[in-house]
Amino acid sequence: MNGAESLVHTLADCGVRLCFANPGTSEMHFVAALDREPRLRGVLCLFEGVAAGAADGYARMTGTPAATLLHLGPGFANAMSHLHNARKAGTPLINIVGDHATTHAQYAQAPLSSDILGICRPVSDWLHQCRSPGEVAADGARAVAAALMAPGQVATLVLPADCAWQDADGPAAPLPVPKARPVEAGRIDTVAAALKNGKRTLLLLRGRCLERAGLEAAGRIAARTGARIAHDYFSPRITRGAGLPAIERIPYFGEEIVARLAGLEQIVLVGAPAPVTFFAYPGKPSWVTPDGCDLITLAEPRDDATAALIALADALDARDVGRIVDLVRPAMPVPGALTSQAMGAIMARLMPDDCILSDDSLTAGPGIQAALKAGPRHDALFLTGGAIGDAMPMAVGAAMACPGRKVIAASGDGAAMYAMPALWTMARERLDVVTIICANRSYNILNIELSRVGAVHSNMGPGPRTLSMLDLHDPVIDFVKQAEGLGVEASRAETTQDFAAQFADAMTRPGPRLIEAVI
Amino acid sequence: MNGAESLVHTLADCGVRLCFANPGTSEMHFVAALDREPRLRGVLCLFEGVAAGAADGYARMTGTPAATLLHLGPGFANAMSHLHNARKAGTPLINIVGDHATTHAQYAQAPLSSDILGICRPVSDWLHQCRSPGEVAADGARAVAAALMAPGQVATLVLPADCAWQDADGPAAPLPVPKARPVEAGRIDTVAAALKNGKRTLLLLRGRCLERAGLEAAGRIAARTGARIAHDYFSPRITRGAGLPAIERIPYFGEEIVARLAGLEQIVLVGAPAPVTFFAYPGKPSWVTPDGCDLITLAEPRDDATAALIALADALDARDVGRIVDLVRPAMPVPGALTSQAMGAIMARLMPDDCILSDDSLTAGPGIQAALKAGPRHDALFLTGGAIGDAMPMAVGAAMACPGRKVIAASGDGAAMYAMPALWTMARERLDVVTIICANRSYNILNIELSRVGAVHSNMGPGPRTLSMLDLHDPVIDFVKQAEGLGVEASRAETTQDFAAQFADAMTRPGPRLIEAVI
Repeated sequence: MNGAESLVHTLADCGVRLCFANPGTSEMHFVAALDREPRLRGVLCLFEGVAAGAADGYARMTGTPAATLLHLGPGFANAMSHLHNARKAGTPLINIVGDHATTHAQYAQAPLSSDILGICRPVSDWLHQCRSPGEVAADGARAVAAALMAPGQVATLVLPADCAWQDADGPAAPLPVPKARPVEAGRIDTVAAALKNGKRTLLLLRGRCLERAGLEAAGRIAARTGARIAHDYFSPRITRGAGLPAIERIPYFGEEIVARLAGLEQIVLVGAPAPVTFFAYPGKPSWVTPDGCDLITLAEPRDDATAALIALADALDARDVGRIVDLVRPAMPVPGALTSQAMGAIMARLMPDDCILSDDSLTAGPGIQAALKAGPRHDALFLTGGAIGDAMPMAVGAAMACPGRKVIAASGDGAAMYAMPALWTMARERLDVVTIICANRSYNILNIELSRVGAVHSNMGPGPRTLSMLDLHDPVIDFVKQAEGLGVEASRAETTQDFAAQFADAMTRPGPRLIEAVI
Repeated sequence: MNGAESLVHTLADCGVRLCFANPGTSEMHFVAALDREPRLRGVLCLFEGVAAGAADGYARMTGTPAATLLHLGPGFANAMSHLHNARKAGTPLINIVGDHATTHAQYAQAPLSSDILGICRPVSDWLHQCRSPGEVAADGARAVAAALMAPGQVATLVLPADCAWQDADGPAAPLPVPKARPVEAGRIDTVAAALKNGKRTLLLLRGRCLERAGLEAAGRIAARTGARIAHDYFSPRITRGAGLPAIERIPYFGEEIVARLAGLEQIVLVGAPAPVTFFAYPGKPSWVTPDGCDLITLAEPRDDATAALIALADALDARDVGRIVDLVRPAMPVPGALTSQAMGAIMARLMPDDCILSDDSLTAGPGIQAALKAGPRHDALFLTGGAIGDAMPMAVGAAMACPGRKVIAASGDGAAMYAMPALWTMARERLDVVTIICANRSYNILNIELSRVGAVHSNMGPGPRTLSMLDLHDPVIDFVKQAEGLGVEASRAETTQDFAAQFADAMTRPGPRLIEAVI
């Protein structure tokens, strides 16, 4: 048994079931080892960003890490932006990165020599380079344990080729799975007391407490105390819709956040950091907690926020379930030109229970989301790190995590161009994913931000060269042809009626499928 | 004048003419400033890797740096793999990377907060973060000077948003352009003496000395001394073909390199490092200089190798031009299934003088190159850092650098999937680029490497799960549809006749154009 085989068996023993791979020569022993370990399945991705985004989506749905297999420094670099998103999401994820053999590392002139640890470090919570074949298996077990440190970490194991190909002893035993840190009773009592002080209060939730158990506890607390409950705009995952407690979503733009939080006297942080704006703007605050508003931490991100919410609800004797979302199947929007609001209404009208929505649309997002909040129960995965183009890759991973559930990926046209190879993996794996491209032929968010950041003089507006940098009309991108080129059935919707018919059809048949929604 | 404007004018004053851009909110002031500086043109790219590859191709053809404009940490990360290639090529290149305002940097919870210097450092020869708006212009001038340090460097300037939007004094004066270091006369004499010692000698060239002036001097030296002249497989750029001195290309695989170098008694390094293999292989050497062969350095990469070759030729009184490549227009290959050899023959038969060939094809490369070496005079740009997918982006930059010249990009199907958004910029800028996708429906290089690295047991061969990780048949990728979806005319060639007809047509009309060559 060589080092690669010892690692593959160890990962499988630790419960890792998928490896999203874009291998190269230095990873051939790992790939060959997959033939001898049926529990760990390789999923080929044609770009490393797809592999990383897929592993992120998989883990957000399962709570357990998938592995990626990446090729040396540049291969890892291609995955970094989506690893950045995964890290911001608190996703458990294991990167296996091949590197040159230890004997080859001395040759800086080799084309693929790189500062591989320097490349990996900025997006890795845990990073280790294997030093000998005999240690590879134990290194792998440590990587899995590191990935599972609450709320979830990006663990990167650099595997030099000779550590993979030389003889090793055998697999290593899994390490104990680290548990989320319990919140002390004293803290529960403190927060319970604060919730009785009559102040205007918001509970801000993030992490796994946005799944049903945590939300139900939060809903009980809200009903008992009058506190509002909310999640930030870029939550990694939330279970929502009909039958779930109603919860606010903090908006994207700073001034909208300020308006939403105005008048609050205390904010209870439940696995969430204090709210700040996404970007800074001249003359506007980044810090949006109102002056004089207390920030009280119930649970830090690494704590068991769900258990803390349940304990808090119990401490408050909060039994009423609170405000539960009633299902609203919207009326069919009026025929005519398609809008994001109409898209959301049609989706809420037609989608089945327990879909998964992977969404990195920016300007189309609020319109789509408006109706979905009261639509059928579903899990929504959002863009946590601002690195666009992860809706489709995350949908790949979510679909592989939950084979029985319909997955909907919603992406802007600008974002989608970062991730088109994801469609090929959807086709190859016959994944039940409907991808919706919100095609406004523009980096529309930047048209909005341009004046918000004061980059154009108010009396003259942006010039033609500036506007051309934000425009995607020349040439118009044909996502239907691109999708077909990657083996995915596709159609274009330019009206409400088109979109309704195509989306309805997509709900009745297994995917993959793509709809270019021209808005 | 704000900081961004002071930077844009400074870059223009320093001779920077193009900015390959994929901006975001934090770069809006830079984008707006482009409206007020007509000398610096923004070129929109839909993925940062395209921007970086385009800047690389531009600089390889002009010797002067282009700028990129990248969005924060993840945007830079998306450019890293092609910046790795650029750095290995010794390309002058300036990255302008937006970052959060300095006042916002304290908020680690902002989705796009990152260790931006940590992300930039591994692929930047020079790295600086602007500290105040008043210093931005001078920082920009220093970045240009750093990029121009011989042979060329990747210079990265991180521009916090508030340094861009706050008032600045005005542009900074360009700094003196650093020159390549001259080689001392004593070294010329030493090498001249060595070339008279009767040993079997190879001159190994890399860098700008592979353009006409350096090659002609090398050719004279070869004629005078009997030395062989060669360039490494992954040279950044070589001018070659009819009318240029004949020069060997060192092969890719280690054992082929060993065979090629066998019997040499001295290797003269001319801007080149000592040759090593691309990867390590079990039981095989990475170091391929024959035992007992002397390594003699004429010029280091930062030296003026062209001047050194000319001085050496003069010192040797080498006047005979040596072996010059005669134009060979190959016969039309026999009709039938297409091969890479037939493709190369057709290209050499039909292409005009002074094409630019940007090539990151792997297994198809030797076949294509076989005939091209004796084809019409052209510049060839190769994959210097092993990060695949740069042929199309480099072609974008080369076409913008040399508007009158036909550009041919040759890429494998695996590599092309890394770079498809480059086609959109070709269409938008009406670039005269013919992209050829060598579609073998496979990561074919890995099928070859799999056994070479000993990853499969010789008595059983690779298993089905291993082979599936290297196979691109399911689904077959339709590059014609994808190209059309990105606004580029495209066709598929499955036979010699198809390819000949389509390539001939492409040579008679301006591009962009794509040919999917099924081999």
